[in-house]
Amino acid sequence: MKNLYLIGVGLIGGSFALDIKKKYPDCKIYGVDTNGAHLNDALTLGVIDEKANVEDVYNAEVVFIAIPVDVTLTVLPQILDYISDETLVIDAGSTKEAICLSIKDHSRRRNYLAAHPIAGTEFSGPNAATYNLFQNKTNIICEVEATAFKLQEKALGIFRDLGMRIRYMNPKAHDKHIAYVSHLSHISSFMLGKTVIEKEKNERDIFDMAGSGFESTVRLAKSSPAMWTPIFKQNKANVIETLGEYINNLMHFKSLMENEDFEAVYKEMKKTNHIKSILSGIK
Amino acid sequence: MKNLYLIGVGLIGGSFALDIKKKYPDCKIYGVDTNGAHLNDALTLGVIDEKANVEDVYNAEVVFIAIPVDVTLTVLPQILDYISDETLVIDAGSTKEAICLSIKDHSRRRNYLAAHPIAGTEFSGPNAATYNLFQNKTNIICEVEATAFKLQEKALGIFRDLGMRIRYMNPKAHDKHIAYVSHLSHISSFMLGKTVIEKEKNERDIFDMAGSGFESTVRLAKSSPAMWTPIFKQNKANVIETLGEYINNLMHFKSLMENEDFEAVYKEMKKTNHIKSILSGIK
Repeated sequence: MKNLYLIGVGLIGGSFALDIKKKYPDCKIYGVDTNGAHLNDALTLGVIDEKANVEDVYNAEVVFIAIPVDVTLTVLPQILDYISDETLVIDAGSTKEAICLSIKDHSRRRNYLAAHPIAGTEFSGPNAATYNLFQNKTNIICEVEATAFKLQEKALGIFRDLGMRIRYMNPKAHDKHIAYVSHLSHISSFMLGKTVIEKEKNERDIFDMAGSGFESTVRLAKSSPAMWTPIFKQNKANVIETLGEYINNLMHFKSLMENEDFEAVYKEMKKTNHIKSILSGIK
Repeated sequence: MKNLYLIGVGLIGGSFALDIKKKYPDCKIYGVDTNGAHLNDALTLGVIDEKANVEDVYNAEVVFIAIPVDVTLTVLPQILDYISDETLVIDAGSTKEAICLSIKDHSRRRNYLAAHPIAGTEFSGPNAATYNLFQNKTNIICEVEATAFKLQEKALGIFRDLGMRIRYMNPKAHDKHIAYVSHLSHISSFMLGKTVIEKEKNERDIFDMAGSGFESTVRLAKSSPAMWTPIFKQNKANVIETLGEYINNLMHFKSLMENEDFEAVYKEMKKTNHIKSILSGIK
């Protein structure tokens, strides 16, 4: 790879750039971001080699888009307008249906590959970028057959070099499933944080009692609202459905406690312990 | 310390024994447990030096109780019956009100110190015991004034040697606050696990999409139901209250999404991000 245009130089884009730089030392990395401070940081940190504008992507061999998913809906069609016939455009957004729909009839649809690397941390911005973020992580590719064969191959080569495991899925199924294993945990974590903070208003000592279990459960509540609000908006129907099921399960647990049915409380937890064997596969 | 009687040789008791062994190499550690397999494991692992029966505690210098909190209600008064006048008895249960009440009028009340080291992992049994589990962790001591002065001093010396930070609190306040920062996160995690497992029945691929964020949020769902059921039972009123507040917050979030008020969704998360600065103090 000779050059990479990074649209969004935050945690995901920045980490992608760091790995690319290591694997392809000759690759020049251009950064595009509406956040000037992030762009300066990315340059200072060596995440990018040069600042650029979105119109410059006609020079790009690869464009990697890692920005809030609502902005992708506007920016992705523009980028497809600007690129050359040979350019590969990848987006890494946490929703896929609306994004795939937004460029469905674009004349350069075959230059685009819809991806979702299941990787990240609760931090954001170029300062949060790290090497090997994608190592052994699952990367969901959607509508692979809509991408030109040569560009599929190029993208898969990059993903392989970064150590990702590939899974193929249609955008509708992706958005439905990811609501359960990613979007819902963010809401459960944010609302747990909220519940405890509300209490803490009058009881400042409470956090002194918090241990590593609480910290683990509430970790995702540190995540960026600017990134997550558009995700919830785009995946509204699925997220509302999972959230409803989650609330029902909590209400059921509460009613078991209210009815003093602690045998059933035990069974609820025992059955869910099964998550151990399921999670043993997750790094 | 010459000898320690461990009532319960699981994660907490076992980890306590390992540290005691390191700090007081001459201390002989006796293990008592109704689970024969755990007792054998503890012996094989070197967590204890010898098996014992609860009646043997009349020889004990220190007794450390780390068993399910419902069993403590029965066992603690018995132990106070059996011990010598000089014995220090510490319990490490996650609830304190009912336990303190159970021995309130016991003639040996002053031999007992009510503690709750905020330490642990999602694992259980002597195999899960580790060194330094208590290092830099908060240890809540309740009703300290009800313990004999010499035995307070002895207990504080042990806790200091194990690296714990001490906080004093009355049992009622302890149970109320710990419901927020510990008991509630376990339920939120168990129910998140349940919600996703229910979905997974027909969609086995779903867990292949789970990342480290999901794993972190659902980690506590691996915890022992045998330990947690009695905790929820003993702290029923507080846990039901926190659970109600949590469910209300989730329902509010859901209604914001249903009403497409994503500005408010953003604000909910932004406000909760404040958890970052609060958590920075937790190890």
